[in-house]
Amino acid sequence: MKRYLSLKSLREVQDLIRREFSPRQVRTTVPLVQAVGRITAQPLFAGYSVPEVHLAAMDGIAVRSGDTWGAGEQRPVTLHDFARVNTGNVIPAGYDAVIMIEDVRMAGENAIIRKAASSWQHVRPAGEDIAESEMIVPSGHRIRPHDIGALAAYGIMEVPVLTVSIGIIPTGTELVPAGTRPLPGQVVESNTVMAEAWLTSLGAICRRYPPTPDDPERIRETIRQAVAENDVVIVSAGSSAGTRDFTAPVIAGLGEVMVHGVGIKPGKPAIIGRVGSVPVIGMPGYPLSALTVLREIIVPLLSQFGLTTPDPEILQAELTATLHSEVGTCEFVLLSIGMIRNRWVAVPLSRGSGVQMSGVRSNAFLRIPDDLEGFEAGQTVPVELLVPRSQAASALLVTGSHDPSLDYLAELVRAAGVSLHSSHTGSMGGILALKRESCHASPMHLLSPDDGEYNIPYLQKYLPGEEVTLVCIAEREQGIVSRDRLSLADLPGHSFVNRQKGSGTRLLLDYRLREMGVAPDSIPGYDRELTTHIGVALAVKTGEAEAGMCVYSAAQALGLPFVPVGTERYELAFRTGDSDDPRITALVQAIASPEFREILSGLGGYTTQETGVLRQVP
Amino acid sequence: MKRYLSLKSLREVQDLIRREFSPRQVRTTVPLVQAVGRITAQPLFAGYSVPEVHLAAMDGIAVRSGDTWGAGEQRPVTLHDFARVNTGNVIPAGYDAVIMIEDVRMAGENAIIRKAASSWQHVRPAGEDIAESEMIVPSGHRIRPHDIGALAAYGIMEVPVLTVSIGIIPTGTELVPAGTRPLPGQVVESNTVMAEAWLTSLGAICRRYPPTPDDPERIRETIRQAVAENDVVIVSAGSSAGTRDFTAPVIAGLGEVMVHGVGIKPGKPAIIGRVGSVPVIGMPGYPLSALTVLREIIVPLLSQFGLTTPDPEILQAELTATLHSEVGTCEFVLLSIGMIRNRWVAVPLSRGSGVQMSGVRSNAFLRIPDDLEGFEAGQTVPVELLVPRSQAASALLVTGSHDPSLDYLAELVRAAGVSLHSSHTGSMGGILALKRESCHASPMHLLSPDDGEYNIPYLQKYLPGEEVTLVCIAEREQGIVSRDRLSLADLPGHSFVNRQKGSGTRLLLDYRLREMGVAPDSIPGYDRELTTHIGVALAVKTGEAEAGMCVYSAAQALGLPFVPVGTERYELAFRTGDSDDPRITALVQAIASPEFREILSGLGGYTTQETGVLRQVP
Repeated sequence: MKRYLSLKSLREVQDLIRREFSPRQVRTTVPLVQAVGRITAQPLFAGYSVPEVHLAAMDGIAVRSGDTWGAGEQRPVTLHDFARVNTGNVIPAGYDAVIMIEDVRMAGENAIIRKAASSWQHVRPAGEDIAESEMIVPSGHRIRPHDIGALAAYGIMEVPVLTVSIGIIPTGTELVPAGTRPLPGQVVESNTVMAEAWLTSLGAICRRYPPTPDDPERIRETIRQAVAENDVVIVSAGSSAGTRDFTAPVIAGLGEVMVHGVGIKPGKPAIIGRVGSVPVIGMPGYPLSALTVLREIIVPLLSQFGLTTPDPEILQAELTATLHSEVGTCEFVLLSIGMIRNRWVAVPLSRGSGVQMSGVRSNAFLRIPDDLEGFEAGQTVPVELLVPRSQAASALLVTGSHDPSLDYLAELVRAAGVSLHSSHTGSMGGILALKRESCHASPMHLLSPDDGEYNIPYLQKYLPGEEVTLVCIAEREQGIVSRDRLSLADLPGHSFVNRQKGSGTRLLLDYRLREMGVAPDSIPGYDRELTTHIGVALAVKTGEAEAGMCVYSAAQALGLPFVPVGTERYELAFRTGDSDDPRITALVQAIASPEFREILSGLGGYTTQETGVLRQVP
Repeated sequence: MKRYLSLKSLREVQDLIRREFSPRQVRTTVPLVQAVGRITAQPLFAGYSVPEVHLAAMDGIAVRSGDTWGAGEQRPVTLHDFARVNTGNVIPAGYDAVIMIEDVRMAGENAIIRKAASSWQHVRPAGEDIAESEMIVPSGHRIRPHDIGALAAYGIMEVPVLTVSIGIIPTGTELVPAGTRPLPGQVVESNTVMAEAWLTSLGAICRRYPPTPDDPERIRETIRQAVAENDVVIVSAGSSAGTRDFTAPVIAGLGEVMVHGVGIKPGKPAIIGRVGSVPVIGMPGYPLSALTVLREIIVPLLSQFGLTTPDPEILQAELTATLHSEVGTCEFVLLSIGMIRNRWVAVPLSRGSGVQMSGVRSNAFLRIPDDLEGFEAGQTVPVELLVPRSQAASALLVTGSHDPSLDYLAELVRAAGVSLHSSHTGSMGGILALKRESCHASPMHLLSPDDGEYNIPYLQKYLPGEEVTLVCIAEREQGIVSRDRLSLADLPGHSFVNRQKGSGTRLLLDYRLREMGVAPDSIPGYDRELTTHIGVALAVKTGEAEAGMCVYSAAQALGLPFVPVGTERYELAFRTGDSDDPRITALVQAIASPEFREILSGLGGYTTQETGVLRQVP
């Protein structure tokens, strides 16, 4: 196993950051209109009062209130000494009240009133808003859009705000710059782009250095330069303890490595070091490891510079799957959460640290503390939100059989404010999720060998007595994808990639193989299971296998030949009681929309005669 | 009363916006690193798979898993056909598994293993992250910092995002540009600065036009130009129905006024109009009216262009004061909220629509629906947050006697993450708030005429039997502020501004006047009440009165002569049971800090011998 110089728990690391890197402020000045979201570096004071003098708050006449005493409906008072004022005009010296013009009758040079004025009525007194020398905001104030108007009114046009300059060094011989299509084995240098965008949004000034190959001399030179030019340095990748991982020894050579290896997953190969007084952080190369180290280590480090971030919102949610975790490691699991029948449900996403899409798909994450072995399915756990709560509440959780058209349904329901989160578990996985109420809807295509009927027999068996509605997405063609236009009958002897057990595609394949009398073990690779149609097509395209079974649209998307096996009814099941849920309504409407038919026809391999048709499970 | 062409309720206006301005998308493209917080204008797809080929997930050897079958601790297997790979290397064709280097013993050209490899172990399969043609995000997706890395990895460097171009026209002869110190009667043009900063932060592209005087011809020309150049036009001020309010007639002349006057407060004089297909919104000139119209009308209008904003978080809080509101008007009241003994408490701020500082001081607001006459003190009401919930939870509510040093305490506790919100109700108001548990702490200086003791007799009387602690802020000098160095004895016959009943300053004044045998009604202006020291000093500075009573620091801040009347003990009371509350701890520590003593000595008029001394109310 790889060895880390000094593995520490996340809590130890966060304590060490607070202890070793003392609070320090770095300032810059930004124009007021760009100051939204920035944090003030010093208290701001009003240089003058607003208003500076008494102003009329109404159109009317400025008077001495004493002159009006005794006026009444039956006892008009005639005023000789007054001044005509409009709203916002200065009240001339000596007057202490304004009478609205509607309440005044002019008679030549005189004004007749029938109601006494109380002193200071309809007057905006000097300093009503703020008095000269008063503090507008203290330091450490995060400027909100509506604060901008006040600051402008009080004469503040440039705002001293907190910042910190961060040098970010990408390392790795295999890197190509973002924007370049990688050759096989090359990796797009994306982590430092994420770091720059993230830290800039917190108020940091980021400087990205050119990618440095895995060469200790070049890495040393770049770190030395970055330390001289910045308040914090991040070295991306090369932070493991392997033979080509030079970050730790180079930092140790220039200064000090305080931590090498943090008890977090993903993100273990992190480094906390220091060169002179500058923190130097080693950020691991796997994207989700980099994300975790940014959030759990680098963002807390920035708060030592006053660039704080609000605590995330935390909800209690019911976990849909058991998650095992190693004691001694704090693990972070990305989630799709949604609200199902008044409780929050959390669906764990792929835990692969290279799967950036888990980050994109997630709207929350779970922290498994390092003293726990994990959580059980059904347990209620605290989850931290990655989107506003109202957006999480609009999530539509779809679990079951995969089809490329689900991406497009996600697009169509967005217009109704619904975020569709789909998990690919195969049709049977979807039925079980629907049964456990851990999803809103399940796409499926389960052929009953008894009567050739789709889906209904399975729902009757697994959700007996429950009211379930099916909406037909399409009738779609399944077939053999290959480079050599193989058919089902050609499979024996050709390498194959299969779909997982419980998927409708696997059931259909097995059904047809039985019909044809073909033994599964005559097909090499029959046991190799992938979870999506596009994954199967990709395995064929890359040469991993000669053939697989998938829907037409997946083969077409990758430009591969496709030989049909059969047409199946691809439907989406939901509980009839949820028909009025605005998320379900949006989904059913999206399926029935002309736009969706057009999308299906563009993808190819779908018959749309039944699209949008509803069936009640009897 | 002013007459509006067509007054509508807020709900009617919001419905009208949805109905009359059909959804429409305006797109622009931003570089990826600047895309955080922007909303995608179209779905984004992966142009290639990540990874494109199978990669080693560990350092080791790539093997055919079939060759390893049967290997065991006691049954080593010698491999001749394998390839050395490091993490991230391409798996050469033909191999389907990786064995970690730690589990391999090299023997010349051969590798000896003692454990069988399962197929695809330690391999990152092609498309594991994303497959070519898959959708990364749908349109309408708000890009988060961690999405940036994924987009970079999938080759997206420019992001098509939603925007809308907004022309903002300031009108008003009295305006001076932000950054210019206004002369008396002039107003800084700050509302359009706020609008630009706010709407830009939502993704709009704002163009501010030069201020236009109150001249219908010039306003007409500018609106005509702005309509030609933008998707939406905002006309700031001139939207009332007075004689100098030209916005509505000019819009009506160019197109159509659909709404003039909205049943909201502040913000009633709003206009919804249209010139051609371009919405033209009249935004009132009072700052908090402008803020309300921005939030309640213009932000919802932007969502017709896809620039949505997340719903605000809503909390249930206990109101500390009764709020009356007119039926037919939806009123918005700015609040300082905080958590006191596990319940949220909401303190209403000034309702003056010119008081921008209420916006700055607020961390939440209350919506009084138009079918209600208001809410009673003590009622639990839904409040909408203007800061993250965690920040609201850190609010320290201080109610009572005002002193300029409170601003500096706000500054000092910020370092501990505490937001100090102070309301100036006078000492007695503070005691009552403490009694009702509607504040955390109360500053006070209440002289008992019986024994010359400060504060304790009042706390014993009003909070009998309760455990209360006092911390001394300072002993401070009160005196007469004037332009002519008047003393207490000079007051009769000179115009005066007083402090409100129940304030310690008023009590001290009355005590001394009685001592001297001076009758209050010999002092003109004795009934004119202001609520802060600095307000009193300002009234003297502007000539509203010849004299007032305030603390030395207020007179000094405005450069006015000060004749001492006496020294008093200015203390802060809190419930002893809250001593461990981190907000109270931070406040007590701030008061006792050397920095605070230095600040007091800079302000002047304070003796700091007792500063930080704690007393228990016996």
